[in-house]
Amino acid sequence: MATKKNNKLKIIPLGGLGEVGKNLTVFEYKKDIIIVDCGITFPDETMYGIDIVLPDFTYLVNNKDRIKGIVVTHGHEDHIGAIPYLLKEMNLPIYATKLTVGLIDNKLNEHGLLRSTERNIIKPKDRIDLGGFNIEFIRVNHSIADSVALCIRCDAATVVHTGDFKIDYTPIDEEVIDLPRFAEIGNEGVDLLMADSTNVELTGFTLSEKSVGKRFIELFDGVQSRIVVATFASNVHRVQQIIDAAVVHGRKVAVSGRSMINVTTTAHELGYLNIPKGTLIDIKEINKYDDHEIVVISTGSQGEPMAALSRMAVGEYRQFSITAGDLVILSASPIPGNEKMVMQVINNLFKLGAEVVYEKLAEVHVSGHARQEELKLMHTLVKPKFFIPVHGEYRMLKHHAELAQTLGMPEENALIASTGSIIELDKNSCREIGKAPSGVTLVDGLGVGDVGNIVLRDRKHLSEDGIFIVMVTMSKGKTVAGPDVISRGFVYVRESEELINEARNVVKAALQKCEDKKITDWNKIKGAVRDALDQFLYEKTKRRPMILPILMEVKQ
Amino acid sequence: MATKKNNKLKIIPLGGLGEVGKNLTVFEYKKDIIIVDCGITFPDETMYGIDIVLPDFTYLVNNKDRIKGIVVTHGHEDHIGAIPYLLKEMNLPIYATKLTVGLIDNKLNEHGLLRSTERNIIKPKDRIDLGGFNIEFIRVNHSIADSVALCIRCDAATVVHTGDFKIDYTPIDEEVIDLPRFAEIGNEGVDLLMADSTNVELTGFTLSEKSVGKRFIELFDGVQSRIVVATFASNVHRVQQIIDAAVVHGRKVAVSGRSMINVTTTAHELGYLNIPKGTLIDIKEINKYDDHEIVVISTGSQGEPMAALSRMAVGEYRQFSITAGDLVILSASPIPGNEKMVMQVINNLFKLGAEVVYEKLAEVHVSGHARQEELKLMHTLVKPKFFIPVHGEYRMLKHHAELAQTLGMPEENALIASTGSIIELDKNSCREIGKAPSGVTLVDGLGVGDVGNIVLRDRKHLSEDGIFIVMVTMSKGKTVAGPDVISRGFVYVRESEELINEARNVVKAALQKCEDKKITDWNKIKGAVRDALDQFLYEKTKRRPMILPILMEVKQ
Repeated sequence: MATKKNNKLKIIPLGGLGEVGKNLTVFEYKKDIIIVDCGITFPDETMYGIDIVLPDFTYLVNNKDRIKGIVVTHGHEDHIGAIPYLLKEMNLPIYATKLTVGLIDNKLNEHGLLRSTERNIIKPKDRIDLGGFNIEFIRVNHSIADSVALCIRCDAATVVHTGDFKIDYTPIDEEVIDLPRFAEIGNEGVDLLMADSTNVELTGFTLSEKSVGKRFIELFDGVQSRIVVATFASNVHRVQQIIDAAVVHGRKVAVSGRSMINVTTTAHELGYLNIPKGTLIDIKEINKYDDHEIVVISTGSQGEPMAALSRMAVGEYRQFSITAGDLVILSASPIPGNEKMVMQVINNLFKLGAEVVYEKLAEVHVSGHARQEELKLMHTLVKPKFFIPVHGEYRMLKHHAELAQTLGMPEENALIASTGSIIELDKNSCREIGKAPSGVTLVDGLGVGDVGNIVLRDRKHLSEDGIFIVMVTMSKGKTVAGPDVISRGFVYVRESEELINEARNVVKAALQKCEDKKITDWNKIKGAVRDALDQFLYEKTKRRPMILPILMEVKQ
Repeated sequence: MATKKNNKLKIIPLGGLGEVGKNLTVFEYKKDIIIVDCGITFPDETMYGIDIVLPDFTYLVNNKDRIKGIVVTHGHEDHIGAIPYLLKEMNLPIYATKLTVGLIDNKLNEHGLLRSTERNIIKPKDRIDLGGFNIEFIRVNHSIADSVALCIRCDAATVVHTGDFKIDYTPIDEEVIDLPRFAEIGNEGVDLLMADSTNVELTGFTLSEKSVGKRFIELFDGVQSRIVVATFASNVHRVQQIIDAAVVHGRKVAVSGRSMINVTTTAHELGYLNIPKGTLIDIKEINKYDDHEIVVISTGSQGEPMAALSRMAVGEYRQFSITAGDLVILSASPIPGNEKMVMQVINNLFKLGAEVVYEKLAEVHVSGHARQEELKLMHTLVKPKFFIPVHGEYRMLKHHAELAQTLGMPEENALIASTGSIIELDKNSCREIGKAPSGVTLVDGLGVGDVGNIVLRDRKHLSEDGIFIVMVTMSKGKTVAGPDVISRGFVYVRESEELINEARNVVKAALQKCEDKKITDWNKIKGAVRDALDQFLYEKTKRRPMILPILMEVKQ
């Protein structure tokens, strides 16, 4: 029995299931492990002060000698962003397409890991062996160039993992998703499909990227003013189409925003952007041209406060000022949670007199993810025995499992797993057999993992009602200085002197009571002060600031 | 000249322009002032710890002897929520329709203001005189019953203020918006229209409320499990339609959530809800019935963490537990900013095994605000000379002004004003002549206005990087106890002992330097400690916690 168990493939998603972001999936067969993608996610509103969120690497650290490498489907942050952090724990080779490697290289360089890391550039249709695994790369379409799906084979099973994908019959780089190869692999027999669930709630087909290009050419037509287009830096095809529209209308192109400059430079160097000579100008030289000769491609389509467009919208971008009449196009959808920030940027742009075109008004964006009809096509070509929906919140995974069932898959063959699930697969079964350590590792400044639940709970408490500090110097159980009280983030002190004075008296009374009762245990004294003050402040204000009594002993 | 100026009507919006919420408009003619609506808004993400947000009442307080009363268009929070807070500053009579007065009464009762406040129930088509003003009430449709627009007349001008409205030819209470009266008033001559801009970005017509009722009847059909429908408590027509669908399918109705119980009780008592005898049951008695006999109407359609549905979704609602197979319908759109919370509730409901129907999947909600075609109809009937778009963020006001221009209004006659604008109007001109004090008053617990920018800035700082407290007891310029360091919300202390110890040494060194230099000014000593520590912590962590040095003097 033991040997039989060893012959199964284990699949452990350490991120990306039950959530959007930080995609990382472990494939484990006998003694060998490979990692598919290694991404970050952005902090939610409960993660006060956190910069980025990583998957929990515990399982990988515990098994690091068995890991053969990281295979990457494409160059988005939620698929590559955590690679440098993992590589600080262990040295692993990376396998990805050229643009993806280029974007990973930028990251490795920032973290001082470029020279120590082996990067292998693969092409669609390539097959590589990593330990007991053979991995085939299959071209897909997505909102970044050079994206691939994977066919992962080992003796136990064959798995197709789509990565993020859409079906675009007219992509900008003319590299259509390799549907024939999915069909062939499907005919050969696939045990498990793992497929992108991002747009499973939407009916129909996602439009071709090319439809946005046509829209740009129309929107630019006849405009005499300057044009600013904000989009995702990584959407190289979108950037290409903005450049193409600029060329059609005889405009120069300037690029603004750090990530936009980085990505376009990398993409241009690697041959993923076709920019006619003389088209690209430095944003500092913009005043040498007439208004109708200018297009600026900018970051900030998500309303991120520090991005170029957001700073332009409040007149705080040094290199470029929006003026009345400028045309600004936001070529992106707000990611859930960013809606208010994006709308604030749009309001500010209108206040400056700009004309603003955004998704609510015009079709200036298409998604990079497959909708229901595309998903049905993928399922139908791959014809898997089992199915695990990936890349999505729970409701999306659930809808995707139901979609598989509408295509004839037995209910018990569509498994809704979660981040941390250990799934065992062979040709006859696919089931969850346990849980691996999983969750989030928070990055705050230079600290990776040093901010946990207690710190976050304190930050939340501090953010809601502030802090109230009581300081007393004691000697042999008697107060010799203080009590002093200091608050921050609680009330505006100058207008609340009376409250603060009363609070000091409440503390004095509590200390006196302890002295009278000859209580000398500092924890008890602190507790008495905290309780008395908490009750007093809540009665007076219906607020509960963090109360921090500090006692010091001085030798008299 | 002076007398001529006095003969103009002044209009001062103290909320609701350039923002969605806290609607309040002042109309001032000669010595008389009336207030139209008096609403709250909810805190944005920068308002840490704030419960609700009021308009700035300074202008009203400064002119309180001239104010004749508050005229209210309908009973939503953003139109009535601030009334109790204003009434604590001054006693004013209120004029509103029956349901609106009923909802205001609930608030006044909570604040102990019911007996001291004069409330006057008006009906559509009523006209009242308040000082130099005559106010006519005109029936409109909206997502709460008993909504009215206003025609405000004084010797200087005639103004139509739509309040919030939509055009519903088949409303649930059969009380269609009084379009003929708008037409008559338009024929008599209107100097200024102020109209709702909420849905001006959307083309076409908002669907009739009745379309949702049909959908409920279809969705309930053949369902054997329990049904939960979440919607806005104030949407009495929606509640009526849920009850009607329940009756059609032979189900009982239980109501859950404090505001849902309050509003339905008031609406029922006042005759705005038609509930057949025996239909309403207490939620505690739900287990006496079979699953197919139950409909629960619940709060929580916005994902509010403390509302009934959100608590059901995490199994923390005492009176009702969601079980596998239950049908849950979210009959509402997420308000911008609430999308993530709503989706989280939906994910949680799916995890409990519920079937969930929400706006992305099915048409279970319609808006209460007019879209472009309805707005065009309103403008065309009222035929105003001047136009001020109201109730909307800047981009909506801008679009609405442009919509007026497409109907033939000269550009200079459509005025985009803002909260605080003082607008002067007569039959020949409409222009902004200055600014009144305006802005936000924050309510935190019992405190109204005691949390300002400094407190919020501190809360933000505390929420991002926490606090680092240094405490020293000194005597005659020498340290006699300490330094002690305590942090909260900065790092997890047990795992960062080394950092904390090093920080203590940095403080010691800074204090020693001060002692060596014979610095005795406490502000200078605190500054030296703060600077040394800030630099040390930033180098080590790239974080900047709030640093609070506390010195105490003890007599030796």
